Amino acid sequence: MDPRVEDHAEVIVDHSVDVESDDEVVIRGDPISEDLVVAVARLCGERGANVTTMLQTDRIGAAYKRAIDIEDVSLSEVSLAMVEKADVYIGIRADTNTHESGDINPEKNAAIAQANEPVREAYLDKRWVGTQYPAPGNAQDAELSTEAYESFVWGAVNKDWAAVREHQQQLVDILDPAEEVRIVSGDTTDIRLSIAGNPTQNDYAERNLPGGEVFTAPVPDSVEGEVLFDKPLMAQGREVRDVRLVFEDGEVTEYDAGKNEDVLAAVLDTDAGARRLGELGIGMNRDIDRFTYNMLFDEKMGDTVHMALGRAYEDTVGEDNEQNESAVHMDMIVDMSEDSRIEVDGEVIQRDGRFRFEEGF
Amino acid sequence: MDPRVEDHAEVIVDHSVDVESDDEVVIRGDPISEDLVVAVARLCGERGANVTTMLQTDRIGAAYKRAIDIEDVSLSEVSLAMVEKADVYIGIRADTNTHESGDINPEKNAAIAQANEPVREAYLDKRWVGTQYPAPGNAQDAELSTEAYESFVWGAVNKDWAAVREHQQQLVDILDPAEEVRIVSGDTTDIRLSIAGNPTQNDYAERNLPGGEVFTAPVPDSVEGEVLFDKPLMAQGREVRDVRLVFEDGEVTEYDAGKNEDVLAAVLDTDAGARRLGELGIGMNRDIDRFTYNMLFDEKMGDTVHMALGRAYEDTVGEDNEQNESAVHMDMIVDMSEDSRIEVDGEVIQRDGRFRFEEGF
Repeated sequence: MDPRVEDHAEVIVDHSVDVESDDEVVIRGDPISEDLVVAVARLCGERGANVTTMLQTDRIGAAYKRAIDIEDVSLSEVSLAMVEKADVYIGIRADTNTHESGDINPEKNAAIAQANEPVREAYLDKRWVGTQYPAPGNAQDAELSTEAYESFVWGAVNKDWAAVREHQQQLVDILDPAEEVRIVSGDTTDIRLSIAGNPTQNDYAERNLPGGEVFTAPVPDSVEGEVLFDKPLMAQGREVRDVRLVFEDGEVTEYDAGKNEDVLAAVLDTDAGARRLGELGIGMNRDIDRFTYNMLFDEKMGDTVHMALGRAYEDTVGEDNEQNESAVHMDMIVDMSEDSRIEVDGEVIQRDGRFRFEEGF
Repeated sequence: MDPRVEDHAEVIVDHSVDVESDDEVVIRGDPISEDLVVAVARLCGERGANVTTMLQTDRIGAAYKRAIDIEDVSLSEVSLAMVEKADVYIGIRADTNTHESGDINPEKNAAIAQANEPVREAYLDKRWVGTQYPAPGNAQDAELSTEAYESFVWGAVNKDWAAVREHQQQLVDILDPAEEVRIVSGDTTDIRLSIAGNPTQNDYAERNLPGGEVFTAPVPDSVEGEVLFDKPLMAQGREVRDVRLVFEDGEVTEYDAGKNEDVLAAVLDTDAGARRLGELGIGMNRDIDRFTYNMLFDEKMGDTVHMALGRAYEDTVGEDNEQNESAVHMDMIVDMSEDSRIEVDGEVIQRDGRFRFEEGF
């Protein structure tokens, strides 16, 4: 087995979710990630934990979704029961073909997500991590050979997360006590939002592996202005490009997209919370040095900012503040490397990607 | 997709477990059986059922089992919760290498089986079926090319189960009211057991696909005599040959095996019920015309009888009779094609594999 797989498994088991004896661990992945699942299962066994592996493929999921009538969509009680009993949930992404679900009706996809929202809520309450195995389909999206993509993924994953934590804490210390954030990029993005009373989190690869971002939640009604998300994103198996949103009193009042606008429309129509922002994140991982059409990596890229429509994470919402609820959490990215700035309470804290606590600011 | 896969999926979904709208269906299989899982998931979707797929590989399971300390073995609460919530459980066997678990300590294997006995009990209460996908590892055991093995498997699976049911019912009608069965083969097997009050079941591919046997449970304390199981069997990933058992008052009092006797010993030591018989079965499926080192098929072969150590199926035990309980259910086969007979209440009902209701008896 590739020693980088064993390192990856160690980061998952000992750093991200810290598996202990008597834990009930669920590992979900695609069969192509079998090596990593083997390595994780072995370490869980050594720690004395119980392991349930659920390999699944998009081909199976897509065949099911194509076949079921939207009227018959309902919560999977089996999945819910399973997640509720778990202490630890490890999700491993690995695709043979990232377009396998591309021909599912977006409305049906949204209905399935909405029906199964309790499953999502249940695992967010556990110790969980989402990570990536360098599969050929994801390498293809990244426009890399599988071998080059392996280096990219394991380079971003197998690193000194204590050092990352320390570097990122400098930004957390700025945002945590702040009231207002303004993000300006070119003449297409100028948005203001309040983060008053909402804690800022330091992502050093506990729930996302790789980690490498600092994030919080906007106060839902406070978002005002316009954003052009100039990096593409994948939603429901399809590429959505150049999403433009206009917010008034926190709600999307105007939208368009340069490609697959119907997917964006379906997402926005999922529920009331899908038209409001649930996350503001700032990518700080400069080891992720290229866009790979994979949000787990893309949102962590240095010199970017991302915002998510939909659900806010509980730990980013202050006790007296509203938590945006939704079946949706769709991240979208703005390139901040040129002609851009982040202002916090009127002070510029990042200019063209460079933070004020970094050289060259 | 091979049309025989789609036929197989239809037999599973519409004949064996009869999936209906609102069913919670769990599909467990190896990734190599993906085509069949796709076809089954699609049909379940068309019927309006919920589907949870759990692909697993022996390589992952074996890595975990090798790593865990026997002291840390415990019930998987996640698996139990999942099975309890399911209405239908579809298990698909498919091996890349049938020896993948061959180096696990037999005692540890037995401890894991015992700890997870509640999971087994839970799914036996559901609508369940176990079936086979023609994978290369199983073809290798059968000493067939994968293509020839595909013909063997789908020939045995995709057939007229109503006709099978009718033919087998003739034997059920003999055994159901009977008291005592005696099985004699050569000078190595002469065993008597009571089936008084225990119902005889007609296996026409509801729980086992392929089906093709008639089976009941011996009254546990009634078994007396000696048996040589002259067909090999696979247990805990290892081949056990020439198992010889001597029964007194229903208990194994002497045993040996020609190969891997330690596996047999570990099975017998699992619990008290593992030393008693839980099943007597008579194979009647003449479309299964060769031994393939796979109990799902081997026990259904025409001209054979099999007996299982351990757990008795609930529906083969009469209300006033004892049901043998165990974490184990290990089938072992006797070749009845030569110098053999089955007597029921003193009358010969099968001679050298031929039944009294068949031509040539």
